[in-house]
Amino acid sequence: MDIIDQTFLPHEFRWRRLQSAEESAEAIHTMRVRGAPLIGATAAYGMALAMRRDASDNSLQKHHDMLLATRPTAVNLRWALQRMRTLLQELPIGKRVDAAYSEAAILCDEDVEINRRIGENGLGIFKEIASRKPGKVLNILTHCNAGWLATVDWGTALAPMYLAHDSGIKIHIWVDETRPRNQGAALTAWELAAHGVPHDVIVDNAGGHLMQHGEVDLCITGTDRTTRSGDVCNKIGTYLKALAAYDNDVPFYVALPGPTIDWTMRDGLASIPIEERDAEEVTRVSGINRRGELQSVAITAPHITARNFAFDVTPARLVTGLITERGVCAASEAGLLGLYPEMRDSD
Amino acid sequence: MDIIDQTFLPHEFRWRRLQSAEESAEAIHTMRVRGAPLIGATAAYGMALAMRRDASDNSLQKHHDMLLATRPTAVNLRWALQRMRTLLQELPIGKRVDAAYSEAAILCDEDVEINRRIGENGLGIFKEIASRKPGKVLNILTHCNAGWLATVDWGTALAPMYLAHDSGIKIHIWVDETRPRNQGAALTAWELAAHGVPHDVIVDNAGGHLMQHGEVDLCITGTDRTTRSGDVCNKIGTYLKALAAYDNDVPFYVALPGPTIDWTMRDGLASIPIEERDAEEVTRVSGINRRGELQSVAITAPHITARNFAFDVTPARLVTGLITERGVCAASEAGLLGLYPEMRDSD
Repeated sequence: MDIIDQTFLPHEFRWRRLQSAEESAEAIHTMRVRGAPLIGATAAYGMALAMRRDASDNSLQKHHDMLLATRPTAVNLRWALQRMRTLLQELPIGKRVDAAYSEAAILCDEDVEINRRIGENGLGIFKEIASRKPGKVLNILTHCNAGWLATVDWGTALAPMYLAHDSGIKIHIWVDETRPRNQGAALTAWELAAHGVPHDVIVDNAGGHLMQHGEVDLCITGTDRTTRSGDVCNKIGTYLKALAAYDNDVPFYVALPGPTIDWTMRDGLASIPIEERDAEEVTRVSGINRRGELQSVAITAPHITARNFAFDVTPARLVTGLITERGVCAASEAGLLGLYPEMRDSD
Repeated sequence: MDIIDQTFLPHEFRWRRLQSAEESAEAIHTMRVRGAPLIGATAAYGMALAMRRDASDNSLQKHHDMLLATRPTAVNLRWALQRMRTLLQELPIGKRVDAAYSEAAILCDEDVEINRRIGENGLGIFKEIASRKPGKVLNILTHCNAGWLATVDWGTALAPMYLAHDSGIKIHIWVDETRPRNQGAALTAWELAAHGVPHDVIVDNAGGHLMQHGEVDLCITGTDRTTRSGDVCNKIGTYLKALAAYDNDVPFYVALPGPTIDWTMRDGLASIPIEERDAEEVTRVSGINRRGELQSVAITAPHITARNFAFDVTPARLVTGLITERGVCAASEAGLLGLYPEMRDSD
């Protein structure tokens, strides 16, 4: 499979061919691919690559486990791998390669359709909020990247922005930089600029100030895992923006595909594993120097220590609504079960 | 006067001689010196340098205005310049140079003493909170740099940390990186490491997550201007941390010298001018590359737009207490007037 190696963005648009499950795992672990839905899709194709080399039960289990261990927080990884394993283990070995590729392709097609529907459902919310300030620009704040780079296509939080812009609604996006890996500055801003959507990058510190001054009409983010009670795990710092939105009566929406819901968990703070990554992601920053070279620079003195927590959990009480492919609901078990009644007995 | 050029820290400790009021203004504007008390001190010496060249009334007013225009938010700048002008305009021209140098030196000595007392008053709070978890490390979160680099000596928020560490209290500091200029990662971490105080740099996004998980016992920051009602203006992002502290019952203290109080203002959100700085501070980051060269790298694509708000206002309702040189008080007009009764009729 071919991926866009996102570690070179926004400075270089570079494709990379993954030729084994190991290369898929490396791409997920080092964040050449990132974003909950895209991680799931890459893992599904990683299983197909594993089957091509060795379709045995042993290989199936081994590569399932290896891919599952790449990143702990996004639940789509587990969901996609379970789906592949469940399908493949029932098949004779000789049929597994074709079935794996076919299932990975179906999973990707489903993701595109899910995101398109999330976009339409989010667009309804944008239209309603925009109708309260006719003729004026709708200012939307987002954190991290939940655009087409984070999914197979469209994106989750960014899907309604593209639809709104294309339908003539005047929008402007406040793009949180999203330290330490700068997915906002590097990926979201790049996506929005490519689509012609007006935007400004701001540091992660700035959103509260903008909300205090009426400069944000709504917030919308993606999520890496949402519990059945509506607690939202997302990129570190999301919780701080949700607090500011709540304090300033700014609606705070989360866009998510069904597979991002973890029906086995209720208490997000207590239960969702939060990945801790290399401290160098905090102490070093990558970018293009004045000579046009991609460089990594240290922002701290050499002996300085750092910690790097990748996600946080926003309690459901701070979330105005969840935007799914099936519609918009309250961030609560009742809300989610209203849209996914078949999950009532799933925990 | 000689300053430490903080734009080279933490990579290089470089002195710079300021030889005119214009050079003082440039140093303040470009943040070679920063921190409310140090800006005031630098402006005071800038007036002395102006008097040395031309001690006329015209020069007095012109350089007062020029220095005042360098940065809009920190009130210490206005306070120091008013103090110098009030003194100097009453003197015959021939006495102004000596008087200006003398007054600037007194102002600096006062700042040292003020900060030492803030340190002692803050130490009392640290001791009390530490006594509730005997034998365990006291985890303190701070934002930006309010250490000796931000003042003439000691610092405000960092002064009690130094005293606590020196007196054997086990402390560990969570140092907010403080984008966009990284004063936390570059200056606070450097100060703390030089003093041997255990610390970890975190991205500005991380504090809420740490507070949710009981990893922060108290927050303490400095301030650039605090209103008579206790609203605290400080580095952008302070408000977000105060919201998280409030949401998690973590005490949130602000350390401030008397001259940082603006007795003419009540409503911080409506009244305090918030500086907007160059967008390049957001889109570019400076650091040391692998070859040991200090470089600036772009983290966004070339055509990406950004905005750069330097401060925000934390409403008094989110502040547990104000630590001043005269003691600790509630963040309210009654609290502040209890410590500064002579200001009762000052607005």
